[in-house]
Amino acid sequence: MQAQLIALDWGTSSLRAYKLGPAGVVLEQRALASGIMHLPTEARDIAGVRCTDGFELAFDAACGDWLDVAPHLPVIACGMVGSAQGWSEAAYRATPVDVSSLGQALHRVRSLRGVEVHIVPGVIEPDGLPNVMRGEETQVLGVLQSLPAGADVLIGLPGSHCKWVKVVEGRITHFDTFMTGELFAILSKHSILGRTQKPCEQFQAQAFDRGVHVALSADGERGLLSTLFSARTLGLTAELSAEQQADYLSGLMIGHELAGLPGSAKHQPIILVGAVALCTRYQRALALCGFAHVSLAQEATERGLWQLAVEAGLTQPATEA
Amino acid sequence: MQAQLIALDWGTSSLRAYKLGPAGVVLEQRALASGIMHLPTEARDIAGVRCTDGFELAFDAACGDWLDVAPHLPVIACGMVGSAQGWSEAAYRATPVDVSSLGQALHRVRSLRGVEVHIVPGVIEPDGLPNVMRGEETQVLGVLQSLPAGADVLIGLPGSHCKWVKVVEGRITHFDTFMTGELFAILSKHSILGRTQKPCEQFQAQAFDRGVHVALSADGERGLLSTLFSARTLGLTAELSAEQQADYLSGLMIGHELAGLPGSAKHQPIILVGAVALCTRYQRALALCGFAHVSLAQEATERGLWQLAVEAGLTQPATEA
Repeated sequence: MQAQLIALDWGTSSLRAYKLGPAGVVLEQRALASGIMHLPTEARDIAGVRCTDGFELAFDAACGDWLDVAPHLPVIACGMVGSAQGWSEAAYRATPVDVSSLGQALHRVRSLRGVEVHIVPGVIEPDGLPNVMRGEETQVLGVLQSLPAGADVLIGLPGSHCKWVKVVEGRITHFDTFMTGELFAILSKHSILGRTQKPCEQFQAQAFDRGVHVALSADGERGLLSTLFSARTLGLTAELSAEQQADYLSGLMIGHELAGLPGSAKHQPIILVGAVALCTRYQRALALCGFAHVSLAQEATERGLWQLAVEAGLTQPATEA
Repeated sequence: MQAQLIALDWGTSSLRAYKLGPAGVVLEQRALASGIMHLPTEARDIAGVRCTDGFELAFDAACGDWLDVAPHLPVIACGMVGSAQGWSEAAYRATPVDVSSLGQALHRVRSLRGVEVHIVPGVIEPDGLPNVMRGEETQVLGVLQSLPAGADVLIGLPGSHCKWVKVVEGRITHFDTFMTGELFAILSKHSILGRTQKPCEQFQAQAFDRGVHVALSADGERGLLSTLFSARTLGLTAELSAEQQADYLSGLMIGHELAGLPGSAKHQPIILVGAVALCTRYQRALALCGFAHVSLAQEATERGLWQLAVEAGLTQPATEA
């Protein structure tokens, strides 16, 4: 099958490149460590010019050989590559947004070899406390593609900064961010709680569940700043072993996050997108919290990038080569 | 005036030594960096013996010269020195406790020079999620000394691990811990929120107040994991300058802490103990949260240690030399 589109998922710490064929089928994919905070630095010739620009170097490493073979392939990218610290800033679009409004707002940057890279803008919810995302909007659109048109759904994207995105009639109308993943990492690495944790290969289900239940209990109403200390005291009183403490903390924090979701979400379809191990944790915690309809989505990013490229007219919806 | 007692406030990162005279008046005091995690390591002769023990070395540095002059002075100590990682473990006493029950439960360790050091036990609240403190119980008893006997009061001790201690009829009946101080420090140092903060000498009152208000708002009900991200997005939308971000975060976190206190505390006398700058922040936030009766206490530790020494019979309540 002939390649139709190069799609890049370019975040803070990694860069994933997809060569997509007709109807967005994945022909080839690669993962590089060249996130926008970890760009290559070694100078190289690109299109006959000595180049030191990290974005150009990473772009060339990700898909230069694909473009050598097919120089006119359209290129689309999402994620932090479009942030103020990225290759070129793609201004946020305000909620509500859908695949059509985002697809028509792609921001272009011309690479050294003359290829235009079309960057998906991030999304801002400006009302009240402002909220932003970059990359997750594309994953959400990828999930929607496999649902009936006009679906109402809540999409959870666990990670460093977990997003919960509300979709009404196929449009992103609202979203919240929870810094659960980043906070868990720095608590384990830099706080007193990490000092007594012992790494453990096996998932400590009982400790995880206990953490979720504490977040939902009357103790949990004092908030995370208070319940966090129990990860230490339950160790001191020998109720948690050193091996159980990390999963207890994980359950506790995810439990607090889920307690912050609107109550109405309990009876709504929920779809999780992200690394499978992490989504499985969330699925378990959601069940404990009484969320009834939870499923997992796959390949959301590449599907979303394909949809946006179609909307932008960069490629055709279902050409068979 | 003649010295009556040596009192040590010996925590994780510092060691404060007080030479107390009649009625507990402070004759001399010192602050050393020799907390139990930062003990001296250089060998020295103590009482004619070559010594390498960090606790002995720190003890000698803190009050060896006072004991040379008056070898029979009683010595009392509180704080992490009595923890499992301390000089000698003073087992926790369970709530409820008062000055009398703690004073009669001092734990003794004999120093190289033959002097007994009397260590105040920490306090544990074993019911429900367990909670512990070491050192704060002594400060609470020091505060109570200046109140009418049998007072009912809520005592707040801001710090790395902020304690809120409920006192009913002169007894510690319940307490909560909030990891506000430690979490603020690691978020500022190790998270994405710290990257855009610019240090600022001047207290940013407006930003601090805004943080408190956000914690109390409908947005705050999603919990700290969610509102934390606003410290970043309000920067992105230019609603907070780089200089304001740290105080916004401080107000936000203290606001969430105070939102976790029982509602009944609003009409109760509250007394704050700790570093003046930090207590002033809490006082401001408490006012914004509608807590009506707040005051600050001074010299709580040395007063508490004196009271406990009196209860233990180590010294006399009000001898005039």
